[in-house]
Amino acid sequence: MPQANKADYSDCPAVLADRFKTLYYDEQTQEVVLLDRRKYPFETVYERYKTVEGVATAIEEMVVQGGPPLAYAAGLGLVLAAREGRRLEIGDWRLGLEAAAGRLIHTRPTADDLHYVVPKALEIGMAAGPERGAKAILDYVNGEIQRGNEVAQRCGRYAAGLLRDGDRVLTHCIAGAALCWMLWWAKLEGKTIQVIASETRPYFQGARLTAQSCLEMGIGCTVITDGMSAHLMSQGQIDKFICAADRMTLDGHITNKVGTLQHAIAANYFGIPFYILGYDGPDPHSPAAADIVIEERPPAEVFHARGREGKVRVAVEGIDGRYPAFDITPPHLIEAIVTDRGIFPPTLLHTYFQTNTKTS
Amino acid sequence: MPQANKADYSDCPAVLADRFKTLYYDEQTQEVVLLDRRKYPFETVYERYKTVEGVATAIEEMVVQGGPPLAYAAGLGLVLAAREGRRLEIGDWRLGLEAAAGRLIHTRPTADDLHYVVPKALEIGMAAGPERGAKAILDYVNGEIQRGNEVAQRCGRYAAGLLRDGDRVLTHCIAGAALCWMLWWAKLEGKTIQVIASETRPYFQGARLTAQSCLEMGIGCTVITDGMSAHLMSQGQIDKFICAADRMTLDGHITNKVGTLQHAIAANYFGIPFYILGYDGPDPHSPAAADIVIEERPPAEVFHARGREGKVRVAVEGIDGRYPAFDITPPHLIEAIVTDRGIFPPTLLHTYFQTNTKTS
Repeated sequence: MPQANKADYSDCPAVLADRFKTLYYDEQTQEVVLLDRRKYPFETVYERYKTVEGVATAIEEMVVQGGPPLAYAAGLGLVLAAREGRRLEIGDWRLGLEAAAGRLIHTRPTADDLHYVVPKALEIGMAAGPERGAKAILDYVNGEIQRGNEVAQRCGRYAAGLLRDGDRVLTHCIAGAALCWMLWWAKLEGKTIQVIASETRPYFQGARLTAQSCLEMGIGCTVITDGMSAHLMSQGQIDKFICAADRMTLDGHITNKVGTLQHAIAANYFGIPFYILGYDGPDPHSPAAADIVIEERPPAEVFHARGREGKVRVAVEGIDGRYPAFDITPPHLIEAIVTDRGIFPPTLLHTYFQTNTKTS
Repeated sequence: MPQANKADYSDCPAVLADRFKTLYYDEQTQEVVLLDRRKYPFETVYERYKTVEGVATAIEEMVVQGGPPLAYAAGLGLVLAAREGRRLEIGDWRLGLEAAAGRLIHTRPTADDLHYVVPKALEIGMAAGPERGAKAILDYVNGEIQRGNEVAQRCGRYAAGLLRDGDRVLTHCIAGAALCWMLWWAKLEGKTIQVIASETRPYFQGARLTAQSCLEMGIGCTVITDGMSAHLMSQGQIDKFICAADRMTLDGHITNKVGTLQHAIAANYFGIPFYILGYDGPDPHSPAAADIVIEERPPAEVFHARGREGKVRVAVEGIDGRYPAFDITPPHLIEAIVTDRGIFPPTLLHTYFQTNTKTS
C-alpha cells in the first residue's frame, strides 16, 4: 500500500474532500461560517454565526452534518464563547466557557468526534486563559480540521486499493471526505467506478451531497431510493457496499445513518462485501454496542421532503412518526474497516491502537 | 376460522376498502372516474376520462395504483372504446376494441390482474357486439370490482386471525383493501394494532394512503422512512411484516413494490414473520420468478418528491437514476400467504387451485 502523500491529493475537486471549504472561523468578522448542508448544492449558502447558541442550533438543525464536521463546528463555537467573555473576571469567563462547552456537546449524542473535540478545546482554552483562550482554541480546532483532512486522505487511499475497475459501489448518506478521496484515488489509478447513492431520507444527503461530490470529480453516480438496494443486489448490479461510520466500538460495531443496517443485512444475504470508511479508528470509550446512544430526531423531519424548490409535506396529518437518526451494524456483517492506519477485520478493530493512541 | 359474511364488513370506514369509492364508470356522462392516488388525501381529486388514451395514460402515470384497481380502471377504459365505436361497421368496431385492449394491457407489465381483466373484457365485448358491447363489458368489470371487494374482505378476515393484541405491524406501500379489512376485523375483535408504515419512496404511498386508511379506521399509524425497518426490528419494535403482492408465482415467489425484498430480508434476519396478503391467489400463468417482468419506471420519479404543497426536486441535476418499481421476494423469506381461500405456506401456494380455479 503506498504511503499517503499530501501533494498527491491536492487536486481533488470535491468540495467535501476539504473541510476548510465547508466550515471555518472568519477572523475578520469573528464569526463561525458553515456551508448549509441541507441546501447544498441547490443553493450554496454560507451561514454566519456570532453566538454559541447560533452554532449549537445549527448543529441540532443539521446545517452541518457528519461526525467530524459537526465536531469541528462545535469547536469553532467554543472560540466564540472564549472571545465573547474575554473581558470578564476569570471565574466568570471559565464558567461561561464551561457552559458553552456543555451546550455544544449536548447538541447531538451519537457521533464520537464531538465528544473529543469539545472537551479538548475546553481544556486548551482553560489553560490559555481569557486573553489567549480564543486564539488557542482556534489553533487547536484548525489543527484538528487539518489532521482530519489528512486522516480522510489516508483512509481513502487504503480504500481505493479495495476497488476494482468497473466496480459498482453502493453508498449511503454522505461518507464525506474519505469517500471523495477513495473515489478520486481510484480514478487516478485508472479505475472506472460507478457510485450507487441511496438517496437517504429524510434529508436526501445521497441524492444531493454524495451525487454532487461525484459530479465534481467526474465519477458516475446513480441515485436510488433507500428501498432499492436489495433488488439491485439480487440482479447482480452492486459489487460492494461502502459507507462511513459516526461511531465505531472497540468490538467492531459501527453506527451510521439509519438505513445502513438494512443495506448491510441485504449485502450479507447476497454475499456482497461491506466495507467501512473508518477514518481514525474506534472510539476508545465505547467498548460495545450498548455504549452507543442512538439519537431520536423529531418525527416532523420524516413528514417532509426538502428540495430545490422548497419543502413539501409528504405524510398526512394526525399520525405518528419516528426518526431514529442512526442504526448499529454488528461486526459479522462487515467485511473490513478501513482507517488511516490500514485495514482491519472488524473484530480486531481494537488493534488500531496498538501502534499509537487516538489523539484529537 | 369464521366464514366471511358481507354484512359484517359493511361499516369499514376506509375509503380504500371499497374500490367503487375510488374508481367507477359514470353512466350519465359516459366517463371513467378515477380518484388520483398521487394526490390523495392531500387533495381529493376525481379525474374524469372520455378516451382510452386518457385512461391508459392515467394508469401509466399512476393516477390509479395497485394491481386490482389499475386492472379495473383498464377494464372501464375498454367500455369507452366499445361505446365510442358503436356506430362503426362491426369489423372496424372489433379492430378498434382490439387496439384499445392492446393499448390498455401494455400500460404496466408487472401486476397480473391487468392481464386477466382486459382479455376477458375484450372477449365479453366481442361476443356482445357493437350495440351491447359497452354494457356487457361494464357489467363484467363492475362484477369484478364487486368480486375483488369480497376477495379482499375474506383475505383480510383470515389475516386478522394472525394478529395478536398489541402487535406492531410493518407494512410497505399500499396493501389496499385487504389490509384495511384485516385491520378493521382485528379492531372489531378487540385487538389493538399499531401500523408501522414505511413511507414508500418515491410516491409516499405509505405516508399518504396507508396512513390515511389507518386514520379513517381509527388505527394507530407510525410513518418511518424506507431505511428504518431493520433498526426498529433490531430494537424489538416490529412484530410482523405484512404487505400485498402485485403478482405471485405458483412456486411461491411474490413481487411487490420495490423495498419489500429489503424489509423481507431484514425480517428474516431478525426472525420476524413475513405474511403476504395474497387476495385471490397466484398467477396460474407464472410458474416461477423468471415469469415476472419488473417494470423500470422513469428515473425522474426518483429525483422528485411530491407533497401537499407541490413537487420539489430532491436530487442534483446531471446524474443517473433507477426506478425498478417492484422487487421479487423468494418463498423461503415468507412465513405464509393469506388468500380468500385460506392461508398457504408459500411453496404450497399452487394448492390454492385444488378446490377451484381462479376466475376473473
